[in-house]
Amino acid sequence: MNIAVLGTGMVGRAVAGRLAELGHTVTVGTRDPQATLARTEPDRMGNPPFATWHADHPTVKLVPFADAAAGAELVVFAGNGAAALDMLGQAGADNLAGKVLLDISNPLDFSAGYPPTLFVDNTDSLGEQIQRAFPDVMVVKGLNTLSAPVMVNPSALGGSTTVFVCGNDSAAKATVVGLIESFGHDDVLDLGGIDTARGPEMYLPLWLRAMNALGTPMFNLKLVR
Amino acid sequence: MNIAVLGTGMVGRAVAGRLAELGHTVTVGTRDPQATLARTEPDRMGNPPFATWHADHPTVKLVPFADAAAGAELVVFAGNGAAALDMLGQAGADNLAGKVLLDISNPLDFSAGYPPTLFVDNTDSLGEQIQRAFPDVMVVKGLNTLSAPVMVNPSALGGSTTVFVCGNDSAAKATVVGLIESFGHDDVLDLGGIDTARGPEMYLPLWLRAMNALGTPMFNLKLVR
Repeated sequence: MNIAVLGTGMVGRAVAGRLAELGHTVTVGTRDPQATLARTEPDRMGNPPFATWHADHPTVKLVPFADAAAGAELVVFAGNGAAALDMLGQAGADNLAGKVLLDISNPLDFSAGYPPTLFVDNTDSLGEQIQRAFPDVMVVKGLNTLSAPVMVNPSALGGSTTVFVCGNDSAAKATVVGLIESFGHDDVLDLGGIDTARGPEMYLPLWLRAMNALGTPMFNLKLVR
Repeated sequence: MNIAVLGTGMVGRAVAGRLAELGHTVTVGTRDPQATLARTEPDRMGNPPFATWHADHPTVKLVPFADAAAGAELVVFAGNGAAALDMLGQAGADNLAGKVLLDISNPLDFSAGYPPTLFVDNTDSLGEQIQRAFPDVMVVKGLNTLSAPVMVNPSALGGSTTVFVCGNDSAAKATVVGLIESFGHDDVLDLGGIDTARGPEMYLPLWLRAMNALGTPMFNLKLVR
């Protein structure tokens, strides 16, 4: 499949790399490709610059958001939640229309320090905001409940774990579930319409505190029944 | 141990019954014991009236909130989250002072229908509200992330699962962890101070949607690492 991944951070790199490994044609979208590639400093999390990752993934093209979205059959939003509406706006509603958008982002607000709060929750969600802003896109929330390395390689953990999908379009969810299963996930729970994205997004505060208590982001929840 | 359980609903009954079964001296607190025992109708969830349960648990005394709290070494708040501050106020700050309070409640707001939203979250939590209102009490948030039957009998599920404790007092948390482990839990994660209660409380929206998707409340999360 031709897949666009919007976002050049750890989530975008992990997903783009895994999709390319699985044989998809992957394009990464960014605001300004030359500026992204020109960066030589690690980011604020200490991750190496994008150019270092890109050198190891030569088949993945880096292009402006709009070009990535225009050429894709499916789009993955892997950017900062706070920038989601802006980045998707740059990708262009026309370029996204009729396509499946897997939204992995979280509405994290770091303005008051760490741990972050959520800038939308309880009676709304970022998934719903995106769906309302882009009504012609089939938004599927998914994979926002675990760290990038576990997201694309769940076998790194000591057993089966659960991930969630939320969205209004059943066919779009089936496509996303197929992709998620191709990463190695074997327990994908469909929570319902995009309004159910409030659940996985509001899990983030627990995830952050569990990460702190466990001393590692290498974990995920399993719904044991 | 002498333990007071405040609340006569399903959570209060499950916890009081299990504690009595484990050999503790258990007193259930309610607003008006005669009124509670006089009810003959099922509650709005279809559960039998308290008197039916009480007939099967004759060693558990039913007394007013204040009497329950006064005679207890440890207090469990198992009531409706929306009524927590009022019920604890009736129990009496003096009767609670210096004691461990295990708060199992959730800040669920059913005023706009189902699924409920949270009446406090993100930058505060019900656990923190209770701790602020009763500064001389050692509040420990715990067991609010699973249904009553699983709470007191985790072996009903198909494997080990994780529960959480949050609180400012380490000794109080150790006491609560001991009680929780006596129920059969083998993975109790200490998230930190009472402010970390925002995590387990904000998990409820996901729990509610997972219950809907799974068609049962008989599940719990395991943090697989």
